[in-house]
Amino acid sequence: MTDAESPETTEEAIMQATYRALCKHGYPETSISNIADEFDKSRSLLYYHYDDKASLLEDFLRFLLDRLEAELADIDDEDPCDHLVAILDRLLPPEMDDEGIEFRRALLELRSQAPYHEGYHEQLERSDDLIVSELVRAIERGIEAGQFRAVNSERVAEYVYSTALGAIERGVTLDDPDVIRQNRAAIDDYVESQLRKYV
Amino acid sequence: MTDAESPETTEEAIMQATYRALCKHGYPETSISNIADEFDKSRSLLYYHYDDKASLLEDFLRFLLDRLEAELADIDDEDPCDHLVAILDRLLPPEMDDEGIEFRRALLELRSQAPYHEGYHEQLERSDDLIVSELVRAIERGIEAGQFRAVNSERVAEYVYSTALGAIERGVTLDDPDVIRQNRAAIDDYVESQLRKYV
Repeated sequence: MTDAESPETTEEAIMQATYRALCKHGYPETSISNIADEFDKSRSLLYYHYDDKASLLEDFLRFLLDRLEAELADIDDEDPCDHLVAILDRLLPPEMDDEGIEFRRALLELRSQAPYHEGYHEQLERSDDLIVSELVRAIERGIEAGQFRAVNSERVAEYVYSTALGAIERGVTLDDPDVIRQNRAAIDDYVESQLRKYV
Repeated sequence: MTDAESPETTEEAIMQATYRALCKHGYPETSISNIADEFDKSRSLLYYHYDDKASLLEDFLRFLLDRLEAELADIDDEDPCDHLVAILDRLLPPEMDDEGIEFRRALLELRSQAPYHEGYHEQLERSDDLIVSELVRAIERGIEAGQFRAVNSERVAEYVYSTALGAIERGVTLDDPDVIRQNRAAIDDYVESQLRKYV
């Protein structure tokens, strides 16, 4: 079996084709047929794997979220404050290239459909829980190390994640990178002036 | 001309039908045809006014945002802190009924499509600017009255609005009212402990 025929490579190619179709057409206009247009292997191979848009996009959402989770798992900062900043850099990077913006647009479109698709709902719930618990972990490590004040880590994590998500929502839908930069600066300010303890 | 035939009433009836179709089917599956199914007047009257989904939904988005703006304009609290809380009650009510959740779901779906529809983009930009400037106004009134600390009002407004939007995004897509309540409590905490000045 050559690389091109291996199952991983086919799945990866399907995900890339889905990504291109979604960025080009937006969620409502994306179909198995225009995903096939972006697929560089045979159409029948795609149709063999998927026969409806919802199950393909559910796998695609899993693919996107796995990527985000892998990025979070990659963080290996010893220092709790660096750890927190590294998570923020994944959630709300002050500067994003076109791919970063498109990735987050695709994610928002799928999220907006979660009330109608149980599969999307499950993926997003898992991913939100993981992100919040990573934030909680970094904050608690900081409290234990005496670097952060004894805040309610759960509440701070919830708050920071919602702010990041809302800033992304506004920034990527209105194509306004300033909103993202300003909100990131505001979160950084909060970490420096309210969370960090200078002794 | 009876009430039922007056242009205002027809427009209102079209908007209500659009709202019902959107809540029932979600954005991608909403069409002029299933909006007509929800419309209690003749289909031809609807088709006379609109021949494509995008322009009907652009008017519908204007209708939703006008409602939000009217709610903000209605606030007449003398006290700056009450004024700020009243804005927050519109943006992020700690408790929402089904209609409140559906309204915000519909808004999020339309927002997620703004990158593909210039008309949606314009409406949302206008509305975001108005909301942020209302928040700035309340904060600056509080600073002038000596009730709030001398914060950067623009930055605080941006931050509060993004947090509210992100909390709504998570709460309404994952059907999790706790996220909304917790984030509202965190914002209220912030207002009490960081913004308010006790002299």
